[in-house]
Amino acid sequence: MAEKSLPVSAQPRIVIVGGGFGGIELAKRLKNKDVQVLMLDRHNYHTFQPLLYQVATGGLEADSIAFPLRKIFKGYKNFTFRVAEVQKVIPERKILETSIGDIKYDYLVLATGSDTNFFGQKEVEHYSMAMKTIPEALNLRSMILQNMEEALIEQDAHIKDSLMNFVVVGGGPTGVELSGALAELKMHVLPNDYPELDINNMDIYLIEGSPDLLGSMSATASRKAKDFLEEMGVTVLTNVRVLGYDGKQISLSSGQSIPSKNVLWSAGVKGSIIDGISPDMLVRGGRIRVDEFNKIPSLDCIYALGDVAAMVSDEYPNGHPGVAPAAIQQGKTLAKNLLKIINNQQPEPFKYNDKGSMATVGRNKAVVDIGKIRFQGVFAWFVWMFVHLMSLVGFRNKVVTFVNWVWSYFSFDRGTRLIIRRFSRESMTEDPLAK
Amino acid sequence: MAEKSLPVSAQPRIVIVGGGFGGIELAKRLKNKDVQVLMLDRHNYHTFQPLLYQVATGGLEADSIAFPLRKIFKGYKNFTFRVAEVQKVIPERKILETSIGDIKYDYLVLATGSDTNFFGQKEVEHYSMAMKTIPEALNLRSMILQNMEEALIEQDAHIKDSLMNFVVVGGGPTGVELSGALAELKMHVLPNDYPELDINNMDIYLIEGSPDLLGSMSATASRKAKDFLEEMGVTVLTNVRVLGYDGKQISLSSGQSIPSKNVLWSAGVKGSIIDGISPDMLVRGGRIRVDEFNKIPSLDCIYALGDVAAMVSDEYPNGHPGVAPAAIQQGKTLAKNLLKIINNQQPEPFKYNDKGSMATVGRNKAVVDIGKIRFQGVFAWFVWMFVHLMSLVGFRNKVVTFVNWVWSYFSFDRGTRLIIRRFSRESMTEDPLAK
Repeated sequence: MAEKSLPVSAQPRIVIVGGGFGGIELAKRLKNKDVQVLMLDRHNYHTFQPLLYQVATGGLEADSIAFPLRKIFKGYKNFTFRVAEVQKVIPERKILETSIGDIKYDYLVLATGSDTNFFGQKEVEHYSMAMKTIPEALNLRSMILQNMEEALIEQDAHIKDSLMNFVVVGGGPTGVELSGALAELKMHVLPNDYPELDINNMDIYLIEGSPDLLGSMSATASRKAKDFLEEMGVTVLTNVRVLGYDGKQISLSSGQSIPSKNVLWSAGVKGSIIDGISPDMLVRGGRIRVDEFNKIPSLDCIYALGDVAAMVSDEYPNGHPGVAPAAIQQGKTLAKNLLKIINNQQPEPFKYNDKGSMATVGRNKAVVDIGKIRFQGVFAWFVWMFVHLMSLVGFRNKVVTFVNWVWSYFSFDRGTRLIIRRFSRESMTEDPLAK
Repeated sequence: MAEKSLPVSAQPRIVIVGGGFGGIELAKRLKNKDVQVLMLDRHNYHTFQPLLYQVATGGLEADSIAFPLRKIFKGYKNFTFRVAEVQKVIPERKILETSIGDIKYDYLVLATGSDTNFFGQKEVEHYSMAMKTIPEALNLRSMILQNMEEALIEQDAHIKDSLMNFVVVGGGPTGVELSGALAELKMHVLPNDYPELDINNMDIYLIEGSPDLLGSMSATASRKAKDFLEEMGVTVLTNVRVLGYDGKQISLSSGQSIPSKNVLWSAGVKGSIIDGISPDMLVRGGRIRVDEFNKIPSLDCIYALGDVAAMVSDEYPNGHPGVAPAAIQQGKTLAKNLLKIINNQQPEPFKYNDKGSMATVGRNKAVVDIGKIRFQGVFAWFVWMFVHLMSLVGFRNKVVTFVNWVWSYFSFDRGTRLIIRRFSRESMTEDPLAK
């Protein structure tokens, strides 16, 4: 079905699975070259993942951080896009099995990104909320607000507590940003919306298994992020792991047990792997081991880049960090290399240019590491906003986000605390295209 | 459960069911008066219904036309809000049965608005799309885009046709605005996104049972709206009724049969009635007959206003038109009257001030009737935009909508053609709180 609908061409066909930062950059660099490019994604839009937490906490509208993939590639003569879920690769036949039928490739690039990693804790996976896609962020927003509504009418003090307590698991950038945003909701928004609730009963915890928050950043950034969060009223627990969560009570390795119906899981990611990629091709974190040309060593003509790939080296024993710049740089080099390979030229090895890292905690509070330069606070916060605004795809999205941020800055408010679709665990779908 | 959580007060309790234009105005006018006000709504937000069609066609983000109800009433000392689905009224006990438990009232105001009326055509109801709520508008947006994606890979020409054909049923303002917006998608947006599709195969029909579009407006407005739509490529069929629709083919009283998987139903509304209001209290269109004080004659202390109410008079034999100004004016008068009634004073009869009506067809194309003054075209279009922008609740929503409109005007584009959640008939919920 799918194959018949695709353009017939004598050019070699490069199939890119995934329209994230890496996949987009790769396709852009192949614009109108002598190859046929086919991109597959389960969504018809690119998701700007770094701002998902703002959607979940009512700061931004979902559509502001999504951008139609077709529009990015408008006017490309050698580009085709299809909404499809890729189920399996059959390397020996050079075929992908997908939800829209079988698709042939000459070169395949897996740019599928990462999924939430619950490290095998099934119960935690069932009851906690992850946040890797826009529908998940919207579910989280609905759940937070629904639990506030329920707390209003709840008479049992213990249950009321559990409806108002938030536990964020994982002290990486996402966990830090989420718990900071929740603290701001507590300070500025919820007391206005729910004057009948005693907001002091709302406790926010951030749980991190290692000794430091923001483990991938400098010691200064880690310490400062912790200080910022504690100033904002977040209880930060480091060196603490989650032992279990039954939907009501979360038990921790410290012996503590917290009643909470709001457990947000940002403790880990793993590569998003399709069938046909065997477990022995993976490294720690479920990423696919690739060589310095982003090629999967044991497979012909199959490449991987970005979060799903681990280009292991002495400097990066677990592969490059799972951030947008790494994916974008790999996409850029891989485009050049694929053209060289097709023309029987020698590809060039990838070289990562670390542009630094940053995280925001809240209003006027962010931490930035750029090489040896470290700074925190107001200026860091403006840098964070500028970089994120500029990285958003599309002029409309930039303007709408900017308007929302300016408005929030002066009003101390969040515009979109709406339960557009009610969240219920029962309604969570198994359809991968709907995730 | 609910009752225990409500404030205890010696003041009489006025319960308002519905946070639409009428309910909001009523509650605002009762601000800090010597009554207790409780508003119930199934959503935690107010929906600006006149712009739903722009959400459905990718022009506006959903959150831009929704406004958190709690925020409107921030700082009111005598106001409480609860998210609840009201199931039944028991007038003899002055109790409402709701999804959060029983709630007592002293005075009850039904401001529940209207639902889509399929006039008993069950099959049409099952297969066509209505658009009265934000989730419905988002479903419609997803369905339109999903059908385009399917058309791309469909090999059967007849099925491909049915995926690309649109039939809008009902030539009132919603139908006119929807078919105009679809025509603009066809002209400016879809050819860029789907260069592989022959856009000339996309036919848009507007079906109206009576001789004229916009039946409630002037003959000039009706004629001009039809001209505008035909200029834009819409096939307008008047004096034609729908005989049946099986999800693939829609059959018309003209003998014609159109293959279409996109049937949008805007042919009628009926009052949104709760149990306990008996059928003999209703007039044509399923609205509740009320007297000139918005009271339901046969029930003590129960009032209705806005779309759900029909204040029948010689001038308005079917009640006032189902538009925002009528609901707002009734809310204003009813607030005064309830305070008078509580203080044993004589209430004043409601008097409707008709402010005119308008509809937009597309870019630079709208029709406006204000009393004897009629105008159409560019100026009408700017008037339409100004009035709608100013009527949006909240500064943030005004600004974001304005930015989107300016951007669309200059770019000829629609920003949000995203399938955030896939639509499937199977996933449509029976939970009234989720609608």
